Amino acid sequence: MPLMKSWVASANDANHPFPLNNLPYGVFSTPSTEERCGVAIGDMILDMAAAEEAGLVKVSDIPVFDAPYWNDFMDLGSDAWAELRTRLIEILSEGSADQTAAEACLVPMADAELHMPIAVSEYTDFYAGRHHAFNVGTMFRGPENALPPNWLHIPIGYNGRASSVYVSGTDIRRPWGQLKGPNDALPRWAPCARFDIELEMGAIVGTSSDGPITVREADDNIFGYVLLNDWSARDIQAWEYQPLGPFQAKATATSISPWIVTKAALEPFRCDTPEREFELLDHLKDCGPMLYDIDLEVTMAPAGKEASTIARTNYKEMYYSAAQQLAHHTTAGSPMNVGDLLGSGTISGPNKENRGSLLEISWGAKEPFTLETGEERSFIEDGDTLTLKGAAKGDGYTIGFGDCVGTVLPALDDPFAR
Amino acid sequence: MPLMKSWVASANDANHPFPLNNLPYGVFSTPSTEERCGVAIGDMILDMAAAEEAGLVKVSDIPVFDAPYWNDFMDLGSDAWAELRTRLIEILSEGSADQTAAEACLVPMADAELHMPIAVSEYTDFYAGRHHAFNVGTMFRGPENALPPNWLHIPIGYNGRASSVYVSGTDIRRPWGQLKGPNDALPRWAPCARFDIELEMGAIVGTSSDGPITVREADDNIFGYVLLNDWSARDIQAWEYQPLGPFQAKATATSISPWIVTKAALEPFRCDTPEREFELLDHLKDCGPMLYDIDLEVTMAPAGKEASTIARTNYKEMYYSAAQQLAHHTTAGSPMNVGDLLGSGTISGPNKENRGSLLEISWGAKEPFTLETGEERSFIEDGDTLTLKGAAKGDGYTIGFGDCVGTVLPALDDPFAR
Repeated sequence: MPLMKSWVASANDANHPFPLNNLPYGVFSTPSTEERCGVAIGDMILDMAAAEEAGLVKVSDIPVFDAPYWNDFMDLGSDAWAELRTRLIEILSEGSADQTAAEACLVPMADAELHMPIAVSEYTDFYAGRHHAFNVGTMFRGPENALPPNWLHIPIGYNGRASSVYVSGTDIRRPWGQLKGPNDALPRWAPCARFDIELEMGAIVGTSSDGPITVREADDNIFGYVLLNDWSARDIQAWEYQPLGPFQAKATATSISPWIVTKAALEPFRCDTPEREFELLDHLKDCGPMLYDIDLEVTMAPAGKEASTIARTNYKEMYYSAAQQLAHHTTAGSPMNVGDLLGSGTISGPNKENRGSLLEISWGAKEPFTLETGEERSFIEDGDTLTLKGAAKGDGYTIGFGDCVGTVLPALDDPFAR
Repeated sequence: MPLMKSWVASANDANHPFPLNNLPYGVFSTPSTEERCGVAIGDMILDMAAAEEAGLVKVSDIPVFDAPYWNDFMDLGSDAWAELRTRLIEILSEGSADQTAAEACLVPMADAELHMPIAVSEYTDFYAGRHHAFNVGTMFRGPENALPPNWLHIPIGYNGRASSVYVSGTDIRRPWGQLKGPNDALPRWAPCARFDIELEMGAIVGTSSDGPITVREADDNIFGYVLLNDWSARDIQAWEYQPLGPFQAKATATSISPWIVTKAALEPFRCDTPEREFELLDHLKDCGPMLYDIDLEVTMAPAGKEASTIARTNYKEMYYSAAQQLAHHTTAGSPMNVGDLLGSGTISGPNKENRGSLLEISWGAKEPFTLETGEERSFIEDGDTLTLKGAAKGDGYTIGFGDCVGTVLPALDDPFAR
């Protein structure tokens, strides 16, 4: 599929992240409007509350877009998702009869503040990128025992904290925590000294389920994807995670990119998961290409400095698709709800330059790396800005995600010294 | 404090779970009314929506009790909590001037169906009972290495799934899952064969926080307590839980008792945590008695048979209080919200008859036990009904919790064989 032309001129650039082929969904406000749903098209945002009020779009008898999240729309179901996309393409296409009416609903993106696109119901994070699991396992257990025995049979995941999921641009405060090094006699209370990122994709559940579902059904229930940074306190994690998994190490923040790229926009980029070492059990078997070919990148910028690219990888490096993760998530009968967010797990690739966490890039601080601006790093220093970028490259067009950015602020003074 | 007398005669029995001293909060419906807030008093429920409409109680300018949860009321803050309790005692006391008006708002409990008392925001489960952690650790690693190194320094916890928290009385469907025994070459897809309970208390967060809070503040933020059964699929857990903790093993269901017993009602039963082997770091230190002396009991009844008591223990056996767990939960900065639910972890005691899970009672199926009705058990069989009971015994009165009951239904036919 080639670039689809829009009367919004900026959308017709082959490298623009938001052409008519994309139409990602976000929530924005301006100095004169409250938070509401919007659709990115080129450098503009289509104000969906205004478009709904003007009768340009109608998806339900009750207005759903004058809301600070897309949950109500998602809950209308996949037929409504398809109908809205068809209608938006009609409105925004070159030569559209609706151009004049739609122009009145456009807001320059430069004037808008972006907010969380969904109300997160519950958040789950997986560990389903093989290169990352292999790298981390090698560091701690050696290459022979790198992958846990279950890893090639189920997408390992754990429940995270929905209350600390933030939109891109939110500053991230370095946490305090209980730390104990291998040679310390006792733990101590101190700011995290090994604060890290994890480059992930987030899948957004758009259709609720109430019991086990197949991989095919799970794929149908996914509404779209965002970039996701699973901020991780490695030193807190090392002390706390046995035996029940990471808890406070992952509780500080999870950042997501502000625009939900829909499954429909990503359709041309579907690709298969890698070859299987062990055949998966039937309920997790692949049943079509359910990964996506999306180029991913991480940059790091010290305070006041230019950003350096520190990792490049691709979503297709995952071992398990989001559909397989969601299907696994339902096996024991747990209901899944509109607005549930699933983190893919860190997406590293086969080579050193493909590593999606600082833990891997600096190999546990044993191999510090140097930024293009000269600074040496093993983990995040105060003032550093970390940015995730993602784009699927089509035939003369780009499906961009909008960056997922966070700047790390110094830890507060001891919150308990009062 | 002795028994406080009510004009609701049934509430004045020394053994009744719901005297005027208790006044627990629930949600009920009747054939003629939708779900709404209610307060248990003896064998009756005070319909709080009716009481609010009649002007008997007024806690805010907007009605909050004509709702299927107590969240809106909790969100009014601890002054409102105290004022409502004072007013309810006034209304329901012997000789109250409001008796006639209140009688019009009473519903016999026998006519009511009970529902979830809160909308669960997020659910966290801890592992903070020492006897349980020691028993389980001994089974898997021997008594010398039973407690993980961090266990005596932080309350170990993991995030659970809020969408599968159910009110007492909800039948529990035995889950399917991926299982692999130690001698199996490959995992298989099968119904859970080691389905278990965990006897816990649940603490309900009634005040939101946005950053680290002290143990004292955490105690202030807790609204009340329920009994909690953390249904656990031990065979799913054994295969999945390394390295990131339990996931589908805990996803089938968590049951809670229908009545929230408020912190105020439990005040006379406060007691200290046990002596510390290691001094806790300042941010987790005890700052007053924050456990409660609550007798707990588990019964098991095969289908159509009488129930046998299989465990007796007490909430005061916990090593960490709910306030310490909540404080720890906030250390890395995660916001906590009204309606968050914290499971204490399994509450076993020092002796064999105090074990709060079948895993411990049958010592991993190595020591099957026999019910009073003759059946032998290691784990739960289809049709078994498990009941948790809890009561604090005061001077001539009882603070009861209302039972937490669940009957286990057979697994469905293979949900993926279609």
